[in-house]
Amino acid sequence: MAMDHAAAEADHLAAERAAARFDVEAMKVAWAGSRHAVDVADRMARLVASDPVFRKDNRTMLSRKDLFKDTLRKAAHAWKRIVELRLTEEEAGLLRQYVDQPGYVDLHWGMFVPAIKGQGTEEQQKKWLPLAYKFQIIGCYAQTELGHGSNVQGLETTATFDPSTDEFVIHSPTLTSSKWWPGGLGKASTHAVVYARLITEGKDYGIHGFIVQLRSLEDHSPLPGVTLGDIGGKFGSGAYNSMDNGVLRFDHVRIPRDQMLMRLSQVTSEGKYVHSDVPKQLLYGTMVYVRQSIVADASKALSRAVCIAVRYSAIRKQFGSQDGGPETQVLNYRTQQSRLFPLLASAYAFRFVGDWLKWLYTDVTQKLEAKDYSTLQEAHACTAGLKAVTTSATADAIEECRKLCGGHGYLNSSGLPELFAVYVPACTYEGDNVVLLLQVARILIKTVSQLTSGKQPVGTMAYMGNVQHLMQSKCAVKTAEDWLNPAFIQEAFEARALRMAVNCAQNIGQAANQEEGFYERSPDLLEAAVAHIQLIIVTKFIEKVQQDIPGHGVKEQLQNLCNVYALYILHKHLGDFLATGCITPKQGALANEQLGKLYTQVRPNAVALVDAFNYTDHFLGSVLGRYDGNVYPALYEEAWKDPLNETVVPEGYHEYLRPLLKQQLKLSRL
Amino acid sequence: MAMDHAAAEADHLAAERAAARFDVEAMKVAWAGSRHAVDVADRMARLVASDPVFRKDNRTMLSRKDLFKDTLRKAAHAWKRIVELRLTEEEAGLLRQYVDQPGYVDLHWGMFVPAIKGQGTEEQQKKWLPLAYKFQIIGCYAQTELGHGSNVQGLETTATFDPSTDEFVIHSPTLTSSKWWPGGLGKASTHAVVYARLITEGKDYGIHGFIVQLRSLEDHSPLPGVTLGDIGGKFGSGAYNSMDNGVLRFDHVRIPRDQMLMRLSQVTSEGKYVHSDVPKQLLYGTMVYVRQSIVADASKALSRAVCIAVRYSAIRKQFGSQDGGPETQVLNYRTQQSRLFPLLASAYAFRFVGDWLKWLYTDVTQKLEAKDYSTLQEAHACTAGLKAVTTSATADAIEECRKLCGGHGYLNSSGLPELFAVYVPACTYEGDNVVLLLQVARILIKTVSQLTSGKQPVGTMAYMGNVQHLMQSKCAVKTAEDWLNPAFIQEAFEARALRMAVNCAQNIGQAANQEEGFYERSPDLLEAAVAHIQLIIVTKFIEKVQQDIPGHGVKEQLQNLCNVYALYILHKHLGDFLATGCITPKQGALANEQLGKLYTQVRPNAVALVDAFNYTDHFLGSVLGRYDGNVYPALYEEAWKDPLNETVVPEGYHEYLRPLLKQQLKLSRL
Repeated sequence: MAMDHAAAEADHLAAERAAARFDVEAMKVAWAGSRHAVDVADRMARLVASDPVFRKDNRTMLSRKDLFKDTLRKAAHAWKRIVELRLTEEEAGLLRQYVDQPGYVDLHWGMFVPAIKGQGTEEQQKKWLPLAYKFQIIGCYAQTELGHGSNVQGLETTATFDPSTDEFVIHSPTLTSSKWWPGGLGKASTHAVVYARLITEGKDYGIHGFIVQLRSLEDHSPLPGVTLGDIGGKFGSGAYNSMDNGVLRFDHVRIPRDQMLMRLSQVTSEGKYVHSDVPKQLLYGTMVYVRQSIVADASKALSRAVCIAVRYSAIRKQFGSQDGGPETQVLNYRTQQSRLFPLLASAYAFRFVGDWLKWLYTDVTQKLEAKDYSTLQEAHACTAGLKAVTTSATADAIEECRKLCGGHGYLNSSGLPELFAVYVPACTYEGDNVVLLLQVARILIKTVSQLTSGKQPVGTMAYMGNVQHLMQSKCAVKTAEDWLNPAFIQEAFEARALRMAVNCAQNIGQAANQEEGFYERSPDLLEAAVAHIQLIIVTKFIEKVQQDIPGHGVKEQLQNLCNVYALYILHKHLGDFLATGCITPKQGALANEQLGKLYTQVRPNAVALVDAFNYTDHFLGSVLGRYDGNVYPALYEEAWKDPLNETVVPEGYHEYLRPLLKQQLKLSRL
Repeated sequence: MAMDHAAAEADHLAAERAAARFDVEAMKVAWAGSRHAVDVADRMARLVASDPVFRKDNRTMLSRKDLFKDTLRKAAHAWKRIVELRLTEEEAGLLRQYVDQPGYVDLHWGMFVPAIKGQGTEEQQKKWLPLAYKFQIIGCYAQTELGHGSNVQGLETTATFDPSTDEFVIHSPTLTSSKWWPGGLGKASTHAVVYARLITEGKDYGIHGFIVQLRSLEDHSPLPGVTLGDIGGKFGSGAYNSMDNGVLRFDHVRIPRDQMLMRLSQVTSEGKYVHSDVPKQLLYGTMVYVRQSIVADASKALSRAVCIAVRYSAIRKQFGSQDGGPETQVLNYRTQQSRLFPLLASAYAFRFVGDWLKWLYTDVTQKLEAKDYSTLQEAHACTAGLKAVTTSATADAIEECRKLCGGHGYLNSSGLPELFAVYVPACTYEGDNVVLLLQVARILIKTVSQLTSGKQPVGTMAYMGNVQHLMQSKCAVKTAEDWLNPAFIQEAFEARALRMAVNCAQNIGQAANQEEGFYERSPDLLEAAVAHIQLIIVTKFIEKVQQDIPGHGVKEQLQNLCNVYALYILHKHLGDFLATGCITPKQGALANEQLGKLYTQVRPNAVALVDAFNYTDHFLGSVLGRYDGNVYPALYEEAWKDPLNETVVPEGYHEYLRPLLKQQLKLSRL
């Protein structure tokens, strides 16, 4: 069916864009962080979008092998372009991001190189990093095992020192000790940082990292004693199946002693285990770095889903007419707004708290260098908790956006199934979200217990020092509009978080012992940790909109979104606020009323607010989220590309349909 | 790697099974409904599991075409077995269920045949049903269009009567009028019930059903004027991609007048539109039937996910040990219990409310035949609402179960990704859940408004008649144990639901007009509808456990699960209960405390409680959910089946990895 060319070129969302009450270009700057950030991202996004090698619209239709081969091709091509165009590190990182296909390079740059940087001695860095920087070796990060995930101390792989040869013997003593999950391990990597129990002089010194070569640099075959493979298909079509998450077993594989990562501790040639004078705390810096990047990724994934859902909700029409007249845009329905606009606000909220985390990382690094560990615990709690809360919320939100697109959201061509499937592991990797929240809770409880001793909490926990006031404060909101006052929001969130933590601490205090109490109350502790983290997100959003933000109407829009986010969380967790007496039922109803009014203000700006993310159609990868809104002809065209449509009469008709229809099934062999 | 055969035969969950404090065989009967139901299901499940044609462990690895062909094969083979073994209707239905692969037969039996039965005249039924019963034709249900989903009145396809030939002309006037989504349409069906605007004598009489032949019965090619295809890939690997959801366009296709479904209205040969004397309400019976089966499916899908997560949580160990001793079973953690046991309880809750809905369908049918429409509206609200609440909760719960299995839940071999992807459309089809809940809310508001006029609400709304008491009742709970009293639970849930509905009604009453108020308050109305439906689920569970239930300990277990379900919902929606003043914060805390105690009681019975679902390993389709718990060797074996593992060195190495590693990328063409 030929498309009407004029119609295909029209902007079906032009009226929406014209209705926006703010400067979209200025909002792009606010979102990206600077004019430079907008420009460089734009340049890299277009570079990728215009290159046929980076095509990804057929990805969900490829077989596993073809998809993996396509990933290898894209990685090599990306590297070639990076070298040819002499891209900066910033540009190269953005280019890889817009290629948007999980692959071994993610682990090489994101885990292997940082592990050597963080845990290797200067000598080791000098030897290994240049090889990695030039891709003369490909590395991955082999920590988790078939039977062991979050609990690193439970790993079974052994690295036994043999002083007679000055080597470590790496070994997998059991089936469950097989390395399992590391990305890039299955097929691509030549090397790995392997975590194993260091055993020397008959003593187990716990988990340490070792650089181990896995494959021949000549023909890529596994080295003797090394068993390697891919762990099999994963959630979704396309999605993370481009990655070769791998399995790895060692049968007494020997490596030189100097391939133990020795920055923090060493084994001497005699087999003595010795600590270096480098403080252990330095490792936390890496953890803060990795987790802040996960928070940044959350806002990226969420904003993509929201962009698709907002645009399609402005195109899609349903009900609201009598006698065959035009139906109502779905975006005009209050139920759609009340589900979608909080997610739009969340995308902005996560973006800004992510920006702040970048600052925090710099701050932590500087303090570590000055051997100031005073804020380390608080920074750790804050990043761990933000990782947990933003990834969980984003995973749920992507699926909600899919549902908000109705039936068509279920089609691969909507982009949303793949976005969901590729995103959800973020809830599990780099610390399972529940495990992380319990770590946050431990620090909260500790902080509460120290309040009476007069120790002042720091950073994002500083509000807890205000315990006298917050335990008995009464929310002063009297009208719906009062909820637009950030001071009221801030205090309600602080009081909720603190009171929940104090309640938990009191309940734990009543238990026979602390650990038993912590165990028994752990579901409540999770809720207290979430409350604390949501307070941080709200606070950082409020701080952002109190800054000077240039551009017509930009600040007003962000204020609206900040209020939407805060009041949405308040409504969603109303039970917390009421149970702790932070607000009254009447005040809760006023917040909900104000939320409705805010939706009305967001409505005309919604499409422009997602335009401000500045995503290309290539990056979005969604027929429903097309910039021009010309959805239906595109959906129709996309359908015919399915392999099932290669023939009009399907394969299998003669064997399995015709005998049925002709009542000759009894005679046929199936 | 050879598996240890003795180990493979051991039951790794034997200790869990021995610890159960109830008779699992008796629980199987309670779950299935009768001894006969257990036996016939067991027989059919084993029949399918033992037949190599019905193998499904490789499903996520098949290409779209191979998967579709496999579905055609399974459907033909299933029909052959049904005929050969002279299976009863009950047995045949169960066999199809255990084949567990979406395909055209689902729509043939589930929508095409019922549509003809419900909307066809006796004459039409006599002509078409025998053809369908013997599969001489294959039918589907063509309602939704590319641009039109939930709003049936918005459909654009036309059926214009031409008295000169006594034919209807079926036509697709626009791109958006293309039929889009019908299962079985894309490749398999020969016929469809097509919904179109009936136009005769120049007047549009709205949407009616027509039987239209689509494909030649000789060679399966589309008939003249008919464009047919598959709409493309959908969420997940395997999953619903076995189904040929289709697109269909008509270019002035002519059908005889007598292929309009004429039970409710006819067009005469002169073109006069006339109503029959059959009451329209009869159609509601079909809707109640379809939706009760969706609720039954929800409990099936949820129980599968819970079975996998509970068994694996008993196998998986993590943390809890010092110095390398055995770690703790994940199922022992309170955080795991507090997420998993409510889902286990929900599976049972949905099962029992589904059983009750079957009774309701019979009751509605009998009343309709007696032309008693007094309970129709209430039954409609109840089934629509239960469809919405149980499918949404199940979709979320499957994903939660996946997360509860940690990283391994992300592997296709866990079965959970496919279970999720294949289940989620239930939230959208047969009435989008939000649209359905708003219908429930409308009836709630109407019922509230009639309370003052003295009209007594019936059935599941009868409690609203107790408005005087419920608007001012105070919960009498004083201790945690008090929450085990079903009367307290019942009253708290009734008061919450009624007060939320009354609040909404009052707020709507303050609006300028009813429709404006309904629009503005629609997010609150959704919450009120959910509260009403949750009350029904709790009530039916309470009624179930008040019955005589045979078997040692069975009743006690169900009482525990009933309390878990109710108190979990209370905790999750604490804001509702507190905001409406139904309970105090103190009582909310007591409920939460009691919930923790209930988890302790569920813990030793958890594995046996999922054994009671009596699912074969074939049906579960999950390495993590294996009956014998021998998970890790099975995961390890499964990995090697991935196509990527066919070669040790991956395809693409020579083109894309070697040039990179050898620093020869610049010279290579990518």
